[in-house]
Amino acid sequence: MTYNLLKGKKGIIFGALNEQSIAWKVAERAVEEGAEIVLTNTAMSIRLGSIDELAAKCNAPIIEADATSVEDLERLVDKTMEHFGGQFDFVLHSIGMSPNVRKGRPYQDLNYDFLSKTLDISAVSFHKLLQVLYAKNAVKEWGSVVALTYMAAQRTFVGYGDMADAKALLESIARSFGAIYGRDHKVRINTVSQSPTETTAGKGVKGMGGMLEFADSMSPLGNALAEDCANYVVTLFSDLTRKVTMQNLYHDGGFSSMGLSESVYHAFLNGSNSDE
Amino acid sequence: MTYNLLKGKKGIIFGALNEQSIAWKVAERAVEEGAEIVLTNTAMSIRLGSIDELAAKCNAPIIEADATSVEDLERLVDKTMEHFGGQFDFVLHSIGMSPNVRKGRPYQDLNYDFLSKTLDISAVSFHKLLQVLYAKNAVKEWGSVVALTYMAAQRTFVGYGDMADAKALLESIARSFGAIYGRDHKVRINTVSQSPTETTAGKGVKGMGGMLEFADSMSPLGNALAEDCANYVVTLFSDLTRKVTMQNLYHDGGFSSMGLSESVYHAFLNGSNSDE
Amino acid sequence: MTYNLLKGKKGIIFGALNEQSIAWKVAERAVEEGAEIVLTNTAMSIRLGSIDELAAKCNAPIIEADATSVEDLERLVDKTMEHFGGQFDFVLHSIGMSPNVRKGRPYQDLNYDFLSKTLDISAVSFHKLLQVLYAKNAVKEWGSVVALTYMAAQRTFVGYGDMADAKALLESIARSFGAIYGRDHKVRINTVSQSPTETTAGKGVKGMGGMLEFADSMSPLGNALAEDCANYVVTLFSDLTRKVTMQNLYHDGGFSSMGLSESVYHAFLNGSNSDE
Amino acid sequence: MTYNLLKGKKGIIFGALNEQSIAWKVAERAVEEGAEIVLTNTAMSIRLGSIDELAAKCNAPIIEADATSVEDLERLVDKTMEHFGGQFDFVLHSIGMSPNVRKGRPYQDLNYDFLSKTLDISAVSFHKLLQVLYAKNAVKEWGSVVALTYMAAQRTFVGYGDMADAKALLESIARSFGAIYGRDHKVRINTVSQSPTETTAGKGVKGMGGMLEFADSMSPLGNALAEDCANYVVTLFSDLTRKVTMQNLYHDGGFSSMGLSESVYHAFLNGSNSDE
Repeated sequence: MTYNLLKGKKGIIFGALNEQSIAWKVAERAVEEGAEIVLTNTAMSIRLGSIDELAAKCNAPIIEADATSVEDLERLVDKTMEHFGGQFDFVLHSIGMSPNVRKGRPYQDLNYDFLSKTLDISAVSFHKLLQVLYAKNAVKEWGSVVALTYMAAQRTFVGYGDMADAKALLESIARSFGAIYGRDHKVRINTVSQSPTETTAGKGVKGMGGMLEFADSMSPLGNALAEDCANYVVTLFSDLTRKVTMQNLYHDGGFSSMGLSESVYHAFLNGSNSDE
Repeated sequence: MTYNLLKGKKGIIFGALNEQSIAWKVAERAVEEGAEIVLTNTAMSIRLGSIDELAAKCNAPIIEADATSVEDLERLVDKTMEHFGGQFDFVLHSIGMSPNVRKGRPYQDLNYDFLSKTLDISAVSFHKLLQVLYAKNAVKEWGSVVALTYMAAQRTFVGYGDMADAKALLESIARSFGAIYGRDHKVRINTVSQSPTETTAGKGVKGMGGMLEFADSMSPLGNALAEDCANYVVTLFSDLTRKVTMQNLYHDGGFSSMGLSESVYHAFLNGSNSDE
Repeated sequence: MTYNLLKGKKGIIFGALNEQSIAWKVAERAVEEGAEIVLTNTAMSIRLGSIDELAAKCNAPIIEADATSVEDLERLVDKTMEHFGGQFDFVLHSIGMSPNVRKGRPYQDLNYDFLSKTLDISAVSFHKLLQVLYAKNAVKEWGSVVALTYMAAQRTFVGYGDMADAKALLESIARSFGAIYGRDHKVRINTVSQSPTETTAGKGVKGMGGMLEFADSMSPLGNALAEDCANYVVTLFSDLTRKVTMQNLYHDGGFSSMGLSESVYHAFLNGSNSDE
Repeated sequence: MTYNLLKGKKGIIFGALNEQSIAWKVAERAVEEGAEIVLTNTAMSIRLGSIDELAAKCNAPIIEADATSVEDLERLVDKTMEHFGGQFDFVLHSIGMSPNVRKGRPYQDLNYDFLSKTLDISAVSFHKLLQVLYAKNAVKEWGSVVALTYMAAQRTFVGYGDMADAKALLESIARSFGAIYGRDHKVRINTVSQSPTETTAGKGVKGMGGMLEFADSMSPLGNALAEDCANYVVTLFSDLTRKVTMQNLYHDGGFSSMGLSESVYHAFLNGSNSDE
């Protein structure tokens, strides 16, 4: 079902690689809800993924940009404003990558050049984006910026490595910039802390399958899927959530408020006993 | 603008007293968005307020109920199911009252019969409501229950008294019952932690005017109004937020993530100096 | 090892039943660290437990009091001040009981008289105690009050029932009263959120054994034991923690900051597979 | 008063510049409590400050190290182990610096080379330190590592700039590494979130005086001073807090749990009115 919830709204979606991407689903849903969008990703992701297909479906231009490059971001925002004929309404940041995790470096043996890249790609890129948007006054009053994050920013999950720290940094940037962008231009900035999700990025995390199953067993409503997340993000882009800002919003079927569910309890006891 | 976001949905709204009430605004917006509703309040509130006017406007029956009485709640739910011809989709709990605050008893000199009433009216009523809904399986799968709360549950505000503790209890009940209702019937339960709001209930808190001004100065987007809250609650009743549960959601213009804003800083320094 | 950390200090310990009790260990450690104490409990707990033994060991009077009775608390505080010849320095509140949990009432089918008792015994008793202490100005400047709590106040644990809500209420009372008692008399109030612990009270919770094992597997340092807790509480009574107040302090081997440990992960996967 | 709380314990203290430094006070108190210490700082801080004086007083060697250099940290840890004849017990990380804040760059106009330095000095240095300690197995079982932080990691304070984000990153590193170091070697890692404090580092923050006054007015016990912090950190290094790990511990006179105090309320109203 669609509601025209984003009718007349315009925005940029970062990070759609292929059909599994949460950003892909957000793009589709935003357009279904009446929005016009611009898609952006790095040259390599554009080449490796299937964003062309999405662009065709959404009738959206693709503007290449490396979100770690201020120059690229400036060009992106300029072109987007040109395309839309002025300011726009929303932005999705769905970018994260850890060379340490990818290359199997354990957290107690990080490569610091890699860590620097993890932070730059996954968190500082968000500040750069916001700083460029702010400098160009690119977002309309009561516009909305959302970044995707994960609960590893609050609690430690085996195997999530330095992405946990990057997400904590990302969420802090959302708060810090939200205070300023809200005060000066009434733009809100929030992060959505999503269930572990089967995406290409997620597959980089070792033992992802087990983590998905664990989270699903712990969550009273089960894991939130990429489609669910797209629906939720649409509400955050809409005019119905104008006073929500500087929040980290758990979208996880209840996982974040669970200590121990019945089904995890039973699987755990089972598994503990079967070890003996 | 309206979106038909609640088209075909049905629900109960507790706590509409008069035009200032958040519940009143939620009722109006829910109906604008296509919902059918039942209104409920205590006999006294019905007499003192102007709910008849709202009922006429919303084409909604009023079913009298004291939310501290399990019997009343059972009757309410039965009649509501009769009215709707079966299960319904959403419920708003907007109930809070502290005899201690009303009668000016300071927090360090509470009357314990009053405290008992504060907790019973403002928090335990929510458990009773949920227990009755659960027992009668009155809410559809993927239905949504929202209770209104205030940040005093996390941080102490001068003058808020034992309502702070009642709100902490209320939020805990939302989590505890959310785990069960989610697991068993896919019903989600959340609390919305709203900016201080100029309602009849709010006026009971001494120094409310100053608190409103302080919160407004601290919040990058200013205080969230009752109208804003109604919009937000509508998204939480909609199908777009199905995987959000057991959360306490700040709807406060950013207040909860602020430590010190520029404008509070200046007023504070000003005021400190002018004291000398 | 002992340090004379509480030399010259005096205080009341609530809730020592038998050797397993955390309060028992706190009493022993406080005395080892140089404190003088008064022990208190209900008539029934005094009869059922072995507090006489502790009293002898600690050279401490036992003053009977039901912590839900303001009168009893007044008498207790009067007698304690008489015994000590004036104000004292610290208080431990270690009281919790849920008739619903004891009698196996599931959270979705609570008896509301029982709930009322749960809240009154486990949480409101703390307010009553503080109100009596405050009214009689019984605690010295820079004195310290600690109440024991559990993380179920923040996250839902299967089987913990309405004690979760009582603990949330208790923690809120610590904050609310801490703001006033700190401002007026420099008395600090904190809660210690302890690992699940094998005590007589803990045994009332169904599946406690499994919960202990789960928490232990999740916590990098393993569960905190009653002895560990006693050590920690001693630091909170000492002069070294004078500026810590209104805090909920996790004492749990790291559990509260864990999302998923390696050993829980493996037991869970094991147990999930062995189900199929 | 002293208690021999750290008798026989050995540790490294980072970040003592001059008598105002919290690290300076921690060094003094640790030695008073019976510890042996090694002092470390950068070449420039050693030259600019008065650490020689502290070293003489504490009978402690100074080993120069730039905490952003893994090589320097390795040399430091090697020399420290040589000095102590093996493993040691505790470490204090009190390091933070933002070129953006120092040079008056507002948060919405950061220099990204500066941001990189802020993060590297104030947060990544902590990971490097932990990784070196872990690799060399330099810390004894049940040892304790503490890093100093500030509440800007959770809430936005005008003027605190990118240090807020650095502190969020620092706190995340404490959690992430705490999970591993705890599991493998029973070493605990915590952060202490201290009141704003009049130190040389603090003076870099514009409007620091007003922030101190605001925090003091908001906190029921007033601001925690550097001396208070030293006392608190001593308890965290002691054997009495062995099961506390992965925590961010507010040491702030209650500030973090306050929404609005009476005295801030009055100064604010005063200042608001006097503007008109």
